[in-house]
Amino acid sequence: MDLTTSQAGEENAPAERPKVTRRTLFGSAAAVAAVAGTAGFAGRSAMAAPATRHSGGADEAQGQDLARKMLLVGEDEETDLKLEYLRVLIDGKLPPRAARKKVLVVGAGVAGLTAARLLKAAGHEVVVIEANASRVGGRVKTFRGIFSDPRLHAEAGAMRLPDFHPMVLALADQLGLKRRLFYNADVAPGAGPTGEVPPVTYHSFTGETWSNGPDKGAFVPPQANFRTKIAVNGTQVSRAAYAQSPRPVNSSFGSDLDTTTAAAVSKAFDRFTVPAGPIGKQLSAWSKIFQKYDGYSTHRYLVEEEGWDQARLQAAGTLENITSRLHYSIVPTLIDHAVISPTNRYWELTEGTDALTSKLAEDLKGELRMGRRMTKLTQTAGGVRIETSAESGDEESPDGAPVDPTEVFEGDYAIVTIPFSALRFCQIEPLMSYAKRRAVTELHYDWATKVLLEFKTRFWEEGPNGFTGGGCVSDSASRFTYFPSHAPDGSPGGVVLAAYTWSDDAARWDSLTPGERYAFALNDLERLYGPRVRAEYTGVGATQSWARARYALGEAVMFTPGQLHELHPAARTVEGRVHFAGEHTSLKPAWIEGALESAVRAFLEVHPR
Amino acid sequence: MDLTTSQAGEENAPAERPKVTRRTLFGSAAAVAAVAGTAGFAGRSAMAAPATRHSGGADEAQGQDLARKMLLVGEDEETDLKLEYLRVLIDGKLPPRAARKKVLVVGAGVAGLTAARLLKAAGHEVVVIEANASRVGGRVKTFRGIFSDPRLHAEAGAMRLPDFHPMVLALADQLGLKRRLFYNADVAPGAGPTGEVPPVTYHSFTGETWSNGPDKGAFVPPQANFRTKIAVNGTQVSRAAYAQSPRPVNSSFGSDLDTTTAAAVSKAFDRFTVPAGPIGKQLSAWSKIFQKYDGYSTHRYLVEEEGWDQARLQAAGTLENITSRLHYSIVPTLIDHAVISPTNRYWELTEGTDALTSKLAEDLKGELRMGRRMTKLTQTAGGVRIETSAESGDEESPDGAPVDPTEVFEGDYAIVTIPFSALRFCQIEPLMSYAKRRAVTELHYDWATKVLLEFKTRFWEEGPNGFTGGGCVSDSASRFTYFPSHAPDGSPGGVVLAAYTWSDDAARWDSLTPGERYAFALNDLERLYGPRVRAEYTGVGATQSWARARYALGEAVMFTPGQLHELHPAARTVEGRVHFAGEHTSLKPAWIEGALESAVRAFLEVHPR
Repeated sequence: MDLTTSQAGEENAPAERPKVTRRTLFGSAAAVAAVAGTAGFAGRSAMAAPATRHSGGADEAQGQDLARKMLLVGEDEETDLKLEYLRVLIDGKLPPRAARKKVLVVGAGVAGLTAARLLKAAGHEVVVIEANASRVGGRVKTFRGIFSDPRLHAEAGAMRLPDFHPMVLALADQLGLKRRLFYNADVAPGAGPTGEVPPVTYHSFTGETWSNGPDKGAFVPPQANFRTKIAVNGTQVSRAAYAQSPRPVNSSFGSDLDTTTAAAVSKAFDRFTVPAGPIGKQLSAWSKIFQKYDGYSTHRYLVEEEGWDQARLQAAGTLENITSRLHYSIVPTLIDHAVISPTNRYWELTEGTDALTSKLAEDLKGELRMGRRMTKLTQTAGGVRIETSAESGDEESPDGAPVDPTEVFEGDYAIVTIPFSALRFCQIEPLMSYAKRRAVTELHYDWATKVLLEFKTRFWEEGPNGFTGGGCVSDSASRFTYFPSHAPDGSPGGVVLAAYTWSDDAARWDSLTPGERYAFALNDLERLYGPRVRAEYTGVGATQSWARARYALGEAVMFTPGQLHELHPAARTVEGRVHFAGEHTSLKPAWIEGALESAVRAFLEVHPR
Repeated sequence: MDLTTSQAGEENAPAERPKVTRRTLFGSAAAVAAVAGTAGFAGRSAMAAPATRHSGGADEAQGQDLARKMLLVGEDEETDLKLEYLRVLIDGKLPPRAARKKVLVVGAGVAGLTAARLLKAAGHEVVVIEANASRVGGRVKTFRGIFSDPRLHAEAGAMRLPDFHPMVLALADQLGLKRRLFYNADVAPGAGPTGEVPPVTYHSFTGETWSNGPDKGAFVPPQANFRTKIAVNGTQVSRAAYAQSPRPVNSSFGSDLDTTTAAAVSKAFDRFTVPAGPIGKQLSAWSKIFQKYDGYSTHRYLVEEEGWDQARLQAAGTLENITSRLHYSIVPTLIDHAVISPTNRYWELTEGTDALTSKLAEDLKGELRMGRRMTKLTQTAGGVRIETSAESGDEESPDGAPVDPTEVFEGDYAIVTIPFSALRFCQIEPLMSYAKRRAVTELHYDWATKVLLEFKTRFWEEGPNGFTGGGCVSDSASRFTYFPSHAPDGSPGGVVLAAYTWSDDAARWDSLTPGERYAFALNDLERLYGPRVRAEYTGVGATQSWARARYALGEAVMFTPGQLHELHPAARTVEGRVHFAGEHTSLKPAWIEGALESAVRAFLEVHPR
């Protein structure tokens, strides 16, 4: 089997190949069309908007700027910033230092910890100010020590690391963290890959190749079986059955579509598969996409540009996780479609994703100030002053207004990495630029909620239809259900991500108490796998609503139409002595990779000042 | 002064007249243009979409259907349903009964209580099943007994009743509830209207006039002073100063707009002032609006149809409360604009809005089953069966999974009035129709959050710039701040609605604990009215996030583009023996009036069966 073939190799998959974005489902895409349709943007003249109408998108300069930021191309339109960032972050090739500075880093998530480590390594003095009194990591959070089987852990936040994100994978490797495959599509119980975990390799558009280790030979993921279910409109079929015969499911939505919905989605976005080639051409193609489509919602695009009828919109919306986000900008989806190939692999950290942030924090013990919330930031000609209030307890700590004693930190510069939804409540003097203030006020944050249930045994692995990993999609409130890709040594049990929802789907869950969430998620799972579910439930659940998390204030930035060109560029601009990092300042929002890119960028801004 | 003149009479207002929708601010609109621009929809041929593009709106039949529902016109296109509903609800003119039935009403909010009262009055057997163990009323909720001065109360939900909603006003009158003016724009302390509270009058398109009492002579509201503030981009001016000289504030957004933003908004919607006239013409005009614009977000409409630049979008967005809802459908805003005149008055119930729902529940003591949450609804050929779980405590009750003992209710029919966001978690057998299921799954619910602070004295009433009622707008996180329109007898204090936010603005607050909300709202109010704010604060606050309310699961339905024609019609369709009511089944979502309309409609469906 070819090395580039995914776990669902062409020769094995029943007419399906997984094309997974953060929000589309594992193993659901017959995405051959996605890579075949390489005619690209320029090949389609019909895309031009009628001359008399303004599309609500970017202008040419904004489009070019966004294209550079998305493709990580320097202002010279020649430099590969990703390559530069890898050399700084992983290879430790730091540019020369101008002067030793004291830098206040606000927020101890991935971006804050990474920026702080780089600054410290470069010889600067650093203080990391974190509101959460109990843990670092921000939206990287692993539930551990709460299940009845102490060997089990489960992810409250980031849970899979894609092959096309070299920085996070190389960082994990460098920190000595083990990684293993995350099965977006289910495999046979006990199946595993053959060969050693391959090194991280990045092929630059400059022709250079970066890698963090020697080739280790063939690595072959196990075959995907697609035994998990699609349960919609009162019927249930396996993913394999749907791939072989999509019509019955599609027609339950009233649709006459005769391919899988994943294939239909791929076809709708074909034109955006910008061909590899000279970076100037890629920039130009992406610039045009930002110009034409940043004013488009996903609903508008699919209905007006692709002519989708309601039935197709609802079928694909349900199966491909589009429905709850129809009112968001189409562009992030187009970017995902162009960047992510169906042959991509996904990884998880064996010890849990928070092993990454814990490890990052290890060298910062002297620099970390936990339980201090920034309430005010003041800039003077000579420095930055940050006032904080003391926080009590952990994220579930007793309620209370910010109280004295306050603690004040002073430094030469600051790197603010907290979400703009949190920054909204900080007093900043003097006022930041108008554009930055708008970005802080307006950037849309999405909802994401997980409900996890612990089971005494991994009953789903039993019998001729047994499977490991992957997941089901349904039109129940739970929507997406993921099964663990791996079992801890010696544990008969497992934690199922019974309900994983975003946007409007998540908002429905967010109103409920944890106990209500467990009960309703269990009901939904019982409808998929029968009454045994109830008997196997240990009675222990865990749930994370990122919208209700008092230090996260939302899952991640998700652009509404127009926000990419109207607001995003200002998210990262420097305000005097204050710099900004975090996923929301990148064009990979919600991904660890975006936070890492932003951290290296902010370091490279501050370091030479 | 003319009877139809609002509190801000033309001769008194400093170039401003209030045009208030639920979400635009009191006293901010120089909306003369809104009533002047009566050329109407049909007069503008340029509105047609380019022939080659589908606008994402309704088709002709859907447009006509939505127009009928919005204007409350019967299927014969002649009957005035509003008139019919007033005669049923207020005059007690019930149609003949077919047979005595047992009806299960789910939810004891305005819609459920009203439907139950009508059914009982008509001789049917009724059971009202309410999940909340501690109170009826749903999203009508009054904070009382929690402030340090026991005479004070404040509204967590609905707080003002517009003159153009005859059902709710006539119902309040009939129930013997006192009402008084709600000052959207501030008046002089101690000022009050002259004359008696006028009766409720409804002028039908049929030429008939309905009224609940004799004319009581002139009623003249006090003059509006517009002393409350606009505080944006680091500067503060009074509303009066802004109305007289809008340029400085507008230019702080970078806009060269030389009118108030309210006037700019009115101008943008002028074409939608459907002229009074034959109902057939009105239906046709509205049908075209649904056809053309249901696919449009507010952002798209203002940018693409009106050519607004970013600066204007942000200035009007901030001052007129548009920013956080730019991605929602433009059509509800167009409806508000067409329906609401700048001369409208608003009322509040003297004893608090929950006096309405408490009074409605008084006659239903024997019928109400509190603390029972519907978990499953089963229909058979002969009846409806509803399983419930016991709820413990009030809305802040201890967390816990739905537990036994369960209680089962059986009846001939059911009227389900709970939000679809709550219905999403109920098991329903057999499956409801596909269209209904989509509506339950997809209809977007909005966020709305209030933070209220109690003060020892009404310090804002003091001095030459003192005022009562009205409110401020700012670009701080608090956004909109309302001051009480009336003072309780003998109390020196008052409760200020320090922060009233919707949509994305509300979501930022929803992540915070109550204590954090009070602290941050106090910070914002201090920036408006100085350090005295802190000294006057009693330390008692109250806060309501409707998105976090476990029985409300959101504020109210707010349509994203396309949902009006794709989903709304199915919200109210009958499913066998199950009928549906609630604001979400009306085309006045979020308003008590919509809930009342839906209740009478559902009663008229069930009663003759």
